[in-house]
Amino acid sequence: MEIIDGNQIAATIIAELKAEVSMIAGRKPCIALVRVGEDPASVSYVRKKEKTAEEIGVTSRIILPPITISQAELFTILDDLNRDPTVDGILVQSPLPKHIDEVAVFRRVAPEKDVDGFNTISLGKVAQEDPSGFVACTPAGIMELLARSGVDLKGKHVVVLGRSLIVGKPIALLALQKKAGANATVTVCHSATTNLSAITRQADVLVAAIGRAEFVTADMVKPGVVVVDVGINRVPDASKKAGYRLTGDVNFSQVAPLCAKITPVPGGVGPMTVAMLMQNTVKAFRQKAAP
Amino acid sequence: MEIIDGNQIAATIIAELKAEVSMIAGRKPCIALVRVGEDPASVSYVRKKEKTAEEIGVTSRIILPPITISQAELFTILDDLNRDPTVDGILVQSPLPKHIDEVAVFRRVAPEKDVDGFNTISLGKVAQEDPSGFVACTPAGIMELLARSGVDLKGKHVVVLGRSLIVGKPIALLALQKKAGANATVTVCHSATTNLSAITRQADVLVAAIGRAEFVTADMVKPGVVVVDVGINRVPDASKKAGYRLTGDVNFSQVAPLCAKITPVPGGVGPMTVAMLMQNTVKAFRQKAAP
Repeated sequence: MEIIDGNQIAATIIAELKAEVSMIAGRKPCIALVRVGEDPASVSYVRKKEKTAEEIGVTSRIILPPITISQAELFTILDDLNRDPTVDGILVQSPLPKHIDEVAVFRRVAPEKDVDGFNTISLGKVAQEDPSGFVACTPAGIMELLARSGVDLKGKHVVVLGRSLIVGKPIALLALQKKAGANATVTVCHSATTNLSAITRQADVLVAAIGRAEFVTADMVKPGVVVVDVGINRVPDASKKAGYRLTGDVNFSQVAPLCAKITPVPGGVGPMTVAMLMQNTVKAFRQKAAP
Repeated sequence: MEIIDGNQIAATIIAELKAEVSMIAGRKPCIALVRVGEDPASVSYVRKKEKTAEEIGVTSRIILPPITISQAELFTILDDLNRDPTVDGILVQSPLPKHIDEVAVFRRVAPEKDVDGFNTISLGKVAQEDPSGFVACTPAGIMELLARSGVDLKGKHVVVLGRSLIVGKPIALLALQKKAGANATVTVCHSATTNLSAITRQADVLVAAIGRAEFVTADMVKPGVVVVDVGINRVPDASKKAGYRLTGDVNFSQVAPLCAKITPVPGGVGPMTVAMLMQNTVKAFRQKAAP
């Protein structure tokens, strides 16, 4: 059994991007990070993105509208960034306050700067297998983890647990693509699936993205499976100073011994997302430079 | 075993649309049908669409550029139609001549007039479960056939044979949607799938869309399955005046006896596509009227 080390793979990608960006003469790629309000998790995520950008040599521009900003005012900010030739990528940190329509905001970001991959066009391009599109960071990170761990999906049966717009559906579409590394048979399961473990036991690669702590147990997998655990759940744990521990959607201690490879939580998919955001930003820069 | 009668269901939908359109005071919905060149199949398809529009009371505007039209000139035609407030839907008949980029043309059609559902945004909206989008006519027709035959997909295992952009992927995304009638567990198989019949035999509903004559045989299905046959293949047949007969992707004589329900070819999915195009046109008209 091999543990897929997301921290190490992400560090490799960040180093590659740093080398690539250092070769760029003149203006460096620039990402605009828009954070509405002071949600502590958002503050921490945006800080992490800013830090990673700095490490790579990507310029970041931080925009911090107050929690009371109207949707129209937020649109104006985005329209300005969309028009700004010195901005290559735009990320609007979610969650947004309730008075703002998140999907409408994601659609407002220009498709060619949509490094978060949440614009409708970006998702459509994933379905169309159009490589000019931006793949959302979590599914893009999963594909990279698999590729860099030597897992070729061709002809494999990939079972995806969860049909969310940001993980389940795009990873299913990516695994289906007719290209090297992909080409998998794909099944998507979810809350309405009957006889779930009979399906998950068929998986050569199981992607768990349902947000239920330690949901996947030993009886749900076949020996030799590759497991990608996308869940990040807090479970109460009196032995921890914080009073909780982080756990994935997979019961790691039960399932890991059966696996050929498995991603841990934390340290699996999580660290990949910021690396993918930066990869998308450099790609946006390149696509603008060579239209 | 019940044969799902696509001709009859399509006729019902057309009658419903006719009644609906007759209630519209003033300007009626209008579809622009753009046919490049004189390909005989295209001539016949466009004529069928024009005739059905007339039957319903939808205005059609036929635009017949020559086969030599440049992509830029075709874009100009589309831009004019996009701007024209008296045009609700635009269909560009495929195939287009080789010097024109078909995907680029489909993207040029304004999303709010994309009654064919081939625009990247339309496909993205299917993934996003956004009901304002237009579903491509074949997958939309399949969902209608199932719904009007009393097949509720909830919790069922739908196996899709084929991952094309116009059938396989959208029907998979539709069957996955979290809404009444859908909510299926979905598996997509294709040319790289290994152990295919072990998967198709699990299907409660099997959608065959691979374009291989009579590919699905009795050993590939379980008794009680619902089969939707999307294939339209010509096979040589000396006993026919035309020298060929039309057949689906399913070996009907073998498979039908095992089915709870099955769509025939011809007379199954085929007749639904024009009905769905008209439904989309009326929807485009309504969405423009009530923005």
